[in-house]
Amino acid sequence: MPDVVEKIKNAGAARISASPGIGSVGGAMAPLIDHTLLKPDASAADVEKLCREAREFVFASVCVNPCNIKLAASLLEGSKVKVCSVVGFPLGANKKEIKAYEARKAVLEGACEIDMVMNVGALKSGDCRLVEQDMQDVREACGRKVITKVILETALLTDEEKITACQLAMKAGMDFVKTSTGFGPGGATVEDVRLLRTVVGEGMGVKASGGIRDTETAARMVEAGATRIGASASVKIVGGQD
Amino acid sequence: MPDVVEKIKNAGAARISASPGIGSVGGAMAPLIDHTLLKPDASAADVEKLCREAREFVFASVCVNPCNIKLAASLLEGSKVKVCSVVGFPLGANKKEIKAYEARKAVLEGACEIDMVMNVGALKSGDCRLVEQDMQDVREACGRKVITKVILETALLTDEEKITACQLAMKAGMDFVKTSTGFGPGGATVEDVRLLRTVVGEGMGVKASGGIRDTETAARMVEAGATRIGASASVKIVGGQD
Repeated sequence: MPDVVEKIKNAGAARISASPGIGSVGGAMAPLIDHTLLKPDASAADVEKLCREAREFVFASVCVNPCNIKLAASLLEGSKVKVCSVVGFPLGANKKEIKAYEARKAVLEGACEIDMVMNVGALKSGDCRLVEQDMQDVREACGRKVITKVILETALLTDEEKITACQLAMKAGMDFVKTSTGFGPGGATVEDVRLLRTVVGEGMGVKASGGIRDTETAARMVEAGATRIGASASVKIVGGQD
Repeated sequence: MPDVVEKIKNAGAARISASPGIGSVGGAMAPLIDHTLLKPDASAADVEKLCREAREFVFASVCVNPCNIKLAASLLEGSKVKVCSVVGFPLGANKKEIKAYEARKAVLEGACEIDMVMNVGALKSGDCRLVEQDMQDVREACGRKVITKVILETALLTDEEKITACQLAMKAGMDFVKTSTGFGPGGATVEDVRLLRTVVGEGMGVKASGGIRDTETAARMVEAGATRIGASASVKIVGGQD
């Protein structure tokens, strides 16, 4: 799929030179991937393995739980791989003050990217003002240098709610909308990625995550408009041949 | 099962007089139940229904996400039903400072019981000092009047780890050990409840939660040593006949 390689190269253009095996779809994918480990029972040894792999394949970031930020940041010192962490994860049902505090703390400890979960229940209750304020407070707590993504948990939303959520994310100044936590009832779909991309246009990132376990699925997400992929099977994705 | 009724009555003795239908196993169960709604997409209307049911059946508490504490507390004003909320939920992988802040905020907003999730990854890494400190900080943030429960997420632990976790919970001064978040790979089992009860003795509570959907299962947990049940199918449990 030469077109896909081109699209992937464009999506990750800034960092693409760092990636090995660029000729293959999988190899081209590395700079788009947040190499993810959010299991509650992840040990220090698991985080070490994750960071080792991220250095080797030059993924965009490692995405870890808050209690592992410091360890990941120290392990990735001097590499191009960033540390990404999560806020209000995975339910999004925390108070906005807590989310903002979590974000501030995460950045202080070395996170350069923050994936927060939207307050889904507030959206379901029609409280758009709270949904937006929640995002905005995290956005502000992070400071301008940090990339912020908001996880919509699309599997819980109607298409109308997905559209509203994207619009609120744009208003709040988020950098990315992201499909799924990986802990919900469903992950990323090509249709959802396409919908999100259509709503946010070209000015924002779209991160596809949840259930992406092979090169082909990842490539289909990029084709649909994703500019970042969240996955734990990242090594398999970049090593895959098509 | 008359013995079970007796056991249930003893477990909930303090509040038993408030419960209707005390002659049946289900009816006797109400004062032991934390009526639970932790879905990320729970709307205000869902919380209202939960609180209405809790008032009607006089459950021990409603267990809600942090963003719904205020609403639940206002809806339950003047009733015997308490508000319970969660901390570090459901992954337990947050920093202890965040957990303590979450707990403090939850209590200020009206929570009388706090169910925190243990740092499972730290236990897996052998960092017992952090696991204990994490619990202790939440315990202190809550103040002495608040009932604190620590969720071990037993489905992720070996029996040895379950025993260690119980011992750390006792040292940290927690009021209850609790089996599961309901978001993990498994819920409460009779064997786990029995093990937890054996380790903590009679001085602490044991809360069985996760996958308890009928009267019989709930009764078996009480027989095994549970003094509190976490369930979303609570109305069915108390309405059930055996």
